[in-house]
Amino acid sequence: METMYTYQQLKKFTLDVFRAIGCSENDSMLATKVLLDADLRGIDSHGIARLSGYVRLWEAKRINASPSIKIVHESPSTAVVDGDGGLGLVVAPFAMDVAIKKAQQAGTGWVAVKNSNHFGIAGHHAMMALSHDMIGIAMTNASPLVAPTFSVERLLGTNPIAVAIPADKQPPFVADFATTTAANGKLEILQRKNADAPPGWIQKKDGSVSTNPHELKEGGALIPLGSDRDHGSHKGFCLGAWVDIFSAVLSGANYGPWVPPFVSFLAPPADPVGAGIGHFFGAMRIDAFRPAEEFKSHMDNWISRFRSAKTTADQESVIIPGDPERMMSEQRIKEGIPVNAKVIEDLQELSGRLKVKF
Amino acid sequence: METMYTYQQLKKFTLDVFRAIGCSENDSMLATKVLLDADLRGIDSHGIARLSGYVRLWEAKRINASPSIKIVHESPSTAVVDGDGGLGLVVAPFAMDVAIKKAQQAGTGWVAVKNSNHFGIAGHHAMMALSHDMIGIAMTNASPLVAPTFSVERLLGTNPIAVAIPADKQPPFVADFATTTAANGKLEILQRKNADAPPGWIQKKDGSVSTNPHELKEGGALIPLGSDRDHGSHKGFCLGAWVDIFSAVLSGANYGPWVPPFVSFLAPPADPVGAGIGHFFGAMRIDAFRPAEEFKSHMDNWISRFRSAKTTADQESVIIPGDPERMMSEQRIKEGIPVNAKVIEDLQELSGRLKVKF
Repeated sequence: METMYTYQQLKKFTLDVFRAIGCSENDSMLATKVLLDADLRGIDSHGIARLSGYVRLWEAKRINASPSIKIVHESPSTAVVDGDGGLGLVVAPFAMDVAIKKAQQAGTGWVAVKNSNHFGIAGHHAMMALSHDMIGIAMTNASPLVAPTFSVERLLGTNPIAVAIPADKQPPFVADFATTTAANGKLEILQRKNADAPPGWIQKKDGSVSTNPHELKEGGALIPLGSDRDHGSHKGFCLGAWVDIFSAVLSGANYGPWVPPFVSFLAPPADPVGAGIGHFFGAMRIDAFRPAEEFKSHMDNWISRFRSAKTTADQESVIIPGDPERMMSEQRIKEGIPVNAKVIEDLQELSGRLKVKF
Repeated sequence: METMYTYQQLKKFTLDVFRAIGCSENDSMLATKVLLDADLRGIDSHGIARLSGYVRLWEAKRINASPSIKIVHESPSTAVVDGDGGLGLVVAPFAMDVAIKKAQQAGTGWVAVKNSNHFGIAGHHAMMALSHDMIGIAMTNASPLVAPTFSVERLLGTNPIAVAIPADKQPPFVADFATTTAANGKLEILQRKNADAPPGWIQKKDGSVSTNPHELKEGGALIPLGSDRDHGSHKGFCLGAWVDIFSAVLSGANYGPWVPPFVSFLAPPADPVGAGIGHFFGAMRIDAFRPAEEFKSHMDNWISRFRSAKTTADQESVIIPGDPERMMSEQRIKEGIPVNAKVIEDLQELSGRLKVKF
C-alpha cells in the first residue's frame, strides 16, 4: 500500500509543481521545505498528501501564487500581516520572521495574519525561533469540523497550537497538537482502513457518540480535547476558541463557521466576516527573561527529569514533546518517506495535468 | 452542611486575618479582593477555604507578609518579577500590572514571576487587562499532583491557564481551566461526599485506572486533560508542561517535582532548583493589532454565533467561557456565599488562634 521515496525525489517534484503554478523560485523552495517537513516528521496528513489540494485551490483562484505579503499594522512588539491570499506555506514563514525581528528589538514579537491559507504543520514555524535562542509559538484556525461542547454544529477547526522551547544538550521541547481529541489526520488513517474510532473522537449529527470515521460526511463532528463534558471537553473548546480568536479576530481573518474550506469542491461561505484564514505567531527572546545559557541548562534538567520518570509497567519512558517527530525525521532522511498508494495516484494525476515529471 | 455569608462578612474577616499576620493595609485589601473573587465566581476550592492554609504557611515562615516585590530583569515588552516570598495574591496583581504597563508602551507585556506562592484564581489576574482594552493571560505552576502520560510519578501541578478577551455589548470571553481532566477542587468535593470519580480523572500508583477520590493519598495522581493516550492525554501533558516552563524555567522559580507544596505540613524539597513557585502573565493591547472597536464588535459576533449554535436535545445553549462564573458572581453578590461546615470550623479555629472576630 506504500512506496518509499527519498526526500530528494519528493522535493524535486514538489518544487516543480510550485514552479508550475507560478510561484517564484524563492517561494517554491520555501513552500517545498515547509510542506515536506510534515512528511519528514511523520505528520503524513499535512505533507505531500496535500500538494494536489493546494493546486486545486490555485486552479479555483482561491490561492494567489505571487502574493504581495505585507505588514499592515504594527507596534514595537506586534504586527498584523496580510497574506494577500498566498500559500500559507509562504505567508507563515514571512510572519514568523517578523515576530523574530520584533523580538530582537522588543524582547518578544507577536504577529497575527489574515488573508492566508493552510500553512502546513504549526511545529515547523514555531521551531524557526529555536536557532535564535527564542521560544516560538504558532497557531492557526482551520475550516469548521469541530462541535463545541453541547453543540451539534461544527464551528471550529482542529486549530493546532505549537510551542517550541530551546534546551542546551537536550533536543528542544516541541509541542504541536490539534486542540481536538484526535487530529483529522488520524481520522483519515481510520477512513482508509475502514476501522472504528475510539468513542470520544467523533459525534453524530445529533451529538451522540459515534465510532464511525466517516461520520463527518453525515453531518457529524470532531470533538474538542477532553472527549466529553465530564472529562473536560469544555477546556478543549476553550483552547480551540483561543486559537480562533487570536488567529482571526485579532487579524481580521474569517473565524468560526466562516473559515473557508481547504478543499476546492466546497465553496467558501457567501458572507465572509474577514479575509482568508488566520494564523498567530509568537517569538520570545530567552534573554529578555534570563540569560539564555542559564535557561537552557535548566531546560536540560527539566527534560532529563521528565524523561527518566518512573513509568507504568508497559512503557519504557515518558515521551518528551517533539521526540517522536525528531526521531522520525532522522529515520526518514536516511531511509526514505513512505507514500500511500492513493496519494501516489493523486500525484501522478497532478503530474500529468501540470506536465511536471513525477 | 452550608451556611450563607454575605460578601461583606467574609471580606471583613479575611481583611482582619491578613492585617493580623502583618500585611500592609493595601496588601490586605488586595489579597482579600483576589481571594474572595474565587468564592464569588463559584471556585470555592480557591477562596476563603484556603485562608487558613495561607496563614499556616506564614506561621511556618514560608510566606513573607511584608515582601519587597521587585522587577529584577526587563526588556521593552518583558520583565521578571521577584515576589520575595510574598502572598501570590499580592505578587500576581503587581506582576500583571507590570505586564499592562509594558503593553501600553510596547503593544504587549509578558511577565514571568519567581519566589511567589499560590495566587488564587488565574482568571482574576487575566481579567485585569479587560478594562484597558487588552487581552489578559495568566498561568501558574503548582505543587506536583499530576502524572504525565506513561508516568507513575507526579511531576506537574494542575497548572491552570486563563485567557480573558474583551467584547463590546457581550460580556468578555474568560477561559480559566486546570490543564488536567478535572481540577483538584472537583476532587475535593467528591472526597467530602465519599463519591466515586469518573474513570479518567485519577490513576493508581501503578498508573492503572482509579475512581477513588482519595487515591492521591495512596500514591496515585491526577491525569492530564485528555484522560488517556487514545484521547489525547499527551496534549494535556504538553499544556501542563508549557505552563510549568513559562512560569518557572523562564523566571527562575521551582519547576516540575521541585515545586514546594501549598500545605505547611509537607516540607519543600530539600534540593530546590529555583525560588518559590512561578507564574506567567501577558497583556496584549488590542489596538496594537487592529482598532479596539472593530475587534470588540467582531467578538460580539463571535460570541453571539457560538451562543446561538444548535445544541444537543438535552442542552439549552453552548456555554461561552466565563458565563457560568459571571452569573454565579452576580447571584452571590445578591444572595450571599455558601460556606461549607468544615470550612467554617477551620475559620473559627483560625479566628480563635489569631484573636480576630469571625
